[in-house]
Amino acid sequence: MHALKVLKSLPLLAIVLETTVGALPAFAAEKELPPKATVNDVIKASKATEWRQLDPENTLYMDIPSGRVIIELAPPFAPNHAANIRSMVREGYFDGLSIYRSQDNWVVQWGDPNEDKPKPLKTAKAKLAGEFTVPLKNDTHFTRLPDRDGYAAQVGHSNGFPSARDPKTGETWLAHCYGMVGVARGNESDSGNGGTLYAVIGNAPRHLDRNITVVGRVITGMPLLSVLPRGPAPMGMYDKADMMVPIKAVRLAADVPAAERSHWEVMRTESASFKAVVEAQRNRGGPWTKVAAGHVDLCNVPIPTRETGK
Amino acid sequence: MHALKVLKSLPLLAIVLETTVGALPAFAAEKELPPKATVNDVIKASKATEWRQLDPENTLYMDIPSGRVIIELAPPFAPNHAANIRSMVREGYFDGLSIYRSQDNWVVQWGDPNEDKPKPLKTAKAKLAGEFTVPLKNDTHFTRLPDRDGYAAQVGHSNGFPSARDPKTGETWLAHCYGMVGVARGNESDSGNGGTLYAVIGNAPRHLDRNITVVGRVITGMPLLSVLPRGPAPMGMYDKADMMVPIKAVRLAADVPAAERSHWEVMRTESASFKAVVEAQRNRGGPWTKVAAGHVDLCNVPIPTRETGK
Repeated sequence: MHALKVLKSLPLLAIVLETTVGALPAFAAEKELPPKATVNDVIKASKATEWRQLDPENTLYMDIPSGRVIIELAPPFAPNHAANIRSMVREGYFDGLSIYRSQDNWVVQWGDPNEDKPKPLKTAKAKLAGEFTVPLKNDTHFTRLPDRDGYAAQVGHSNGFPSARDPKTGETWLAHCYGMVGVARGNESDSGNGGTLYAVIGNAPRHLDRNITVVGRVITGMPLLSVLPRGPAPMGMYDKADMMVPIKAVRLAADVPAAERSHWEVMRTESASFKAVVEAQRNRGGPWTKVAAGHVDLCNVPIPTRETGK
Repeated sequence: MHALKVLKSLPLLAIVLETTVGALPAFAAEKELPPKATVNDVIKASKATEWRQLDPENTLYMDIPSGRVIIELAPPFAPNHAANIRSMVREGYFDGLSIYRSQDNWVVQWGDPNEDKPKPLKTAKAKLAGEFTVPLKNDTHFTRLPDRDGYAAQVGHSNGFPSARDPKTGETWLAHCYGMVGVARGNESDSGNGGTLYAVIGNAPRHLDRNITVVGRVITGMPLLSVLPRGPAPMGMYDKADMMVPIKAVRLAADVPAAERSHWEVMRTESASFKAVVEAQRNRGGPWTKVAAGHVDLCNVPIPTRETGK
């Protein structure tokens, strides 16, 4: 029964109605907590209208030797960078470049590893003003999370992306959660252009929020990135050519024949089911859970995705 | 200059005095922020007395084909489990077992994968009451973090481990941050014994706090665990024998001849330098940082470790 025990022991999204909260003394008699819908239960019971397809104009297919990583861009939060990345993709800029950095509990990064002889651009811009925050009016889909957050006045979800905002300054920005994709830059705010991107592979580095243009989120394929061997050079850089992970191609879904597209959808974060997902994660029920957290951190909220029939 | 830009772009611990806070409008003229000591600067300037050696009685060497993972046990938070793990290690219980689970953004887990024919124990106990929380008096090293936390009334550090506490209930517990090691269990609180352990490899699953006995922390070797291919079966289980990662041996440092021991030390979390580390992470300075976070999450505080001369 040992493996069964193990199988039940750490359900990622196995969340089940809990009425009592408060820590149990270590040796107290256990109460049976009522079962509660898990995240997976909520997903199964959701309506088709509570999901949206990815927009092909905002969906990137990055093909690496181990498979396909699909990234969704978020133009409301980074309109100029999304447009520039689209241009670079259409120019074939990323094709033949590589993943050249993997730093534990931090990021995997890709783009052009050659500092001395950078790959030339065609129509895409080499520099762009940072879009670290955008005006609140850019985001018309915000659903606020009632749970408090240390890094921002308000946090929540915007059409499938974790976001934060400050009503006092009138700004909003995407939050650095696991799987979010950002634009690497140098010391100058305008030194990035989207040609060097990274995905978060560790604990959410929220202190980077408002310091970097976050352009999107990995929808599927994180396990292809997160397992890449950590680089031996400082900051996880790969310092030998044979460590580099080649990028075969990055394409925009809109440019791929419809029959060859991947079909993924994201739960609408304004839906009733998403609200139920959040609550399922915030307060798990029995029988495994003994103490419901009573809180959920922005970056611990799962944003459900699924592949649909082709 | 592209790689240089990249090299500077995402310093993990490059933290540097920032006076102004508040988001910069996207196109505002940049202010130069004063430089500030980084975490690495603080480490370099720290005194020898601000570090402690690992206690050989609480230090595990887990040898897997790719190298050595060193885990420090935290007996004040899990006295019975620490003792039972010590017994199992001394019985050779873990030797020849395997890592059999790797779930993305969640955990890597090891122990006995055979449910039908579990490896017998000798003197170690097969079940132990959960040590999900312990009385406050168990922990004599708590240094509170002033930053607010959503999951607990108080958080901070206890002799090198991230911890949380509730003065109202008189309980304290270790927090599920990246690299923390916990005891897998079934639905019953007493169904774990320390023979099945996991390490956190993703965003801190703080909702597990007070639901699991957390026994310690990986001091070095996380990159050996975090890159293991994610298991294809539900919950990241490896479902074929050849996927299993063999554990060559787990030994207690105290049982290894002194000349063969690894020598790691941890910064004392009660020290002035550690306080400076926390502040360096909370409010980074220029020139890369444009907006200091003004907050640090418990699990984003680095707890410095280093290998010393042998």
